[in-house]
Amino acid sequence: MPESSSPGAAADPLASWNEGTTKNSIIDFVARVTKAGGEDYVAPEERIATFDNDGTLWSERPYYFQVAFAFDQMKAMASRHPEWKEKEPFESVLAGDLSRVFAGGLPALAEIVIATHSGMTTGEFEVLARDWLEATRHPTTNKLFTEMVFQPMLELLAYLRANGFKTFIVSGGGIEFMRAFAEATYGVPPEQVIGSSGKLKFEFRDGEPVLTKLVEIEIIDDNVMKPAVIQNHIGRRPIASFGNSDGDLAMLQWTTAGKGARFAMLVHHTDAAREWAYDRTPSIGQLDRALDEAIAKGWTVVDMKNDWRRIFPFE
Amino acid sequence: MPESSSPGAAADPLASWNEGTTKNSIIDFVARVTKAGGEDYVAPEERIATFDNDGTLWSERPYYFQVAFAFDQMKAMASRHPEWKEKEPFESVLAGDLSRVFAGGLPALAEIVIATHSGMTTGEFEVLARDWLEATRHPTTNKLFTEMVFQPMLELLAYLRANGFKTFIVSGGGIEFMRAFAEATYGVPPEQVIGSSGKLKFEFRDGEPVLTKLVEIEIIDDNVMKPAVIQNHIGRRPIASFGNSDGDLAMLQWTTAGKGARFAMLVHHTDAAREWAYDRTPSIGQLDRALDEAIAKGWTVVDMKNDWRRIFPFE
Repeated sequence: MPESSSPGAAADPLASWNEGTTKNSIIDFVARVTKAGGEDYVAPEERIATFDNDGTLWSERPYYFQVAFAFDQMKAMASRHPEWKEKEPFESVLAGDLSRVFAGGLPALAEIVIATHSGMTTGEFEVLARDWLEATRHPTTNKLFTEMVFQPMLELLAYLRANGFKTFIVSGGGIEFMRAFAEATYGVPPEQVIGSSGKLKFEFRDGEPVLTKLVEIEIIDDNVMKPAVIQNHIGRRPIASFGNSDGDLAMLQWTTAGKGARFAMLVHHTDAAREWAYDRTPSIGQLDRALDEAIAKGWTVVDMKNDWRRIFPFE
Repeated sequence: MPESSSPGAAADPLASWNEGTTKNSIIDFVARVTKAGGEDYVAPEERIATFDNDGTLWSERPYYFQVAFAFDQMKAMASRHPEWKEKEPFESVLAGDLSRVFAGGLPALAEIVIATHSGMTTGEFEVLARDWLEATRHPTTNKLFTEMVFQPMLELLAYLRANGFKTFIVSGGGIEFMRAFAEATYGVPPEQVIGSSGKLKFEFRDGEPVLTKLVEIEIIDDNVMKPAVIQNHIGRRPIASFGNSDGDLAMLQWTTAGKGARFAMLVHHTDAAREWAYDRTPSIGQLDRALDEAIAKGWTVVDMKNDWRRIFPFE
């Protein structure tokens, strides 16, 4: 019996979820796969759950938080890169003209992320990311970025782990960036964080071995790459997956195509008052094809406005 | 307290290791990093141990066991590849002229491995590997390949886990091939097996999503790539690493360069009677530079002949 469910009148482990079909679908699934002797029973080692990060575990507006980090790093690095003053998209970031940066789409953002996430050791990058996360506040809410995580999802992560699941993050976000906060914030250790990554070079610096972050991309962990990356890192098919956008569709398809009980869930951003509301049209976090498929296949779709009693821990 | 050490007069968890400095170096290290309040104490989540596979956990003679698998797969696939009859290195394998195949060195072997490990789904490959491992016997010992694992290393894996370590395999062997037996044989689950890998393609076959194994190489997990792959998959630096060849040197350098107590060990194949004896000269499993560095730095070097009471479980 999982430890969290043993005390008599235990508090609701999903207290921030309003009662209803969404919450029930989670509880029902967990009950089925953990019931010893039941026809849907799944051995603990096969209880793999994979979570997207941006828009699923924390907010992604007004732009990916890692992009905010990259912007700040760019400014900090600018004195060593005089050429950036006359080269887009760097020029526009330095001039504070973000709308012009975003007009360049994902390629422009990727260029900024790569330029600010390479040319240093993994150890140096970790310090930069941790320091930034501890000190920097969200541009509109003025909260720390690590405070802008979804309380119901924190409860869900803990609930699954208490029921023998191993929880993984499988996100398009940078693997080293996410590892800088995932253990403290989500309880997900570094070896269970999977993300986009650049190539690393093993070399000696002053006689000490280091891993230097190169500009070459190793993998973009999004869309149809998610199942491939899951196979490479985990080697088992998840029985439950959680996302919020079309970039998660392949992961949910891969998860639900396995034999036995499966669970797929999408977080639908429907609460403009407490968080943000968007789905089919935006360039970031678009939820269109995946929403259609979720409806057609009966996957769980979280209506943030109605299903979540509380969105952020600070509320 | 780890469960295995709790009974009063418990059996020696490292019973196949002869008493002496090698065995003591292991026990001393584990005692130091697990002693609460001690100056070398390491929190359980940081107790990461990485193991090479070929030559470290099981034998690698007369050639890598995965190469034996590839040879057999080639023969099984040959009818669908008439061109192999007139193309090296395939021609020599089909003709049974292995000395000519090995004359082609690692590039020839790699070509055979890639040709036999692609063009199928991950699920299909897993079945092929499992079936082969269950049915095929070693060319000289006539044992199953999974019986040719080193009993002292099985005990070491269990001993470390009983002391709160998380044990990973980090090997040049194929990641999917090793996962077909690592959990049953070593107690290492798929998500803790890291190896060389090919690219995977997510696609639909008869309406079902599959991951198809492509011929393109994703990563060769050997030599200076081992620290990079460790960082990518685990995201923590190991505190203990175990290898047997120059291909493990970078992993051991990376491990021991970390702060605090560190442990590095090489298995030196010195027992021609019970296993094989080789070190500085062979093309497979060469132990030359790493042996020099181990001696210079005081790493633990296992003398198989003298340090291991028993080598294989079947003895």
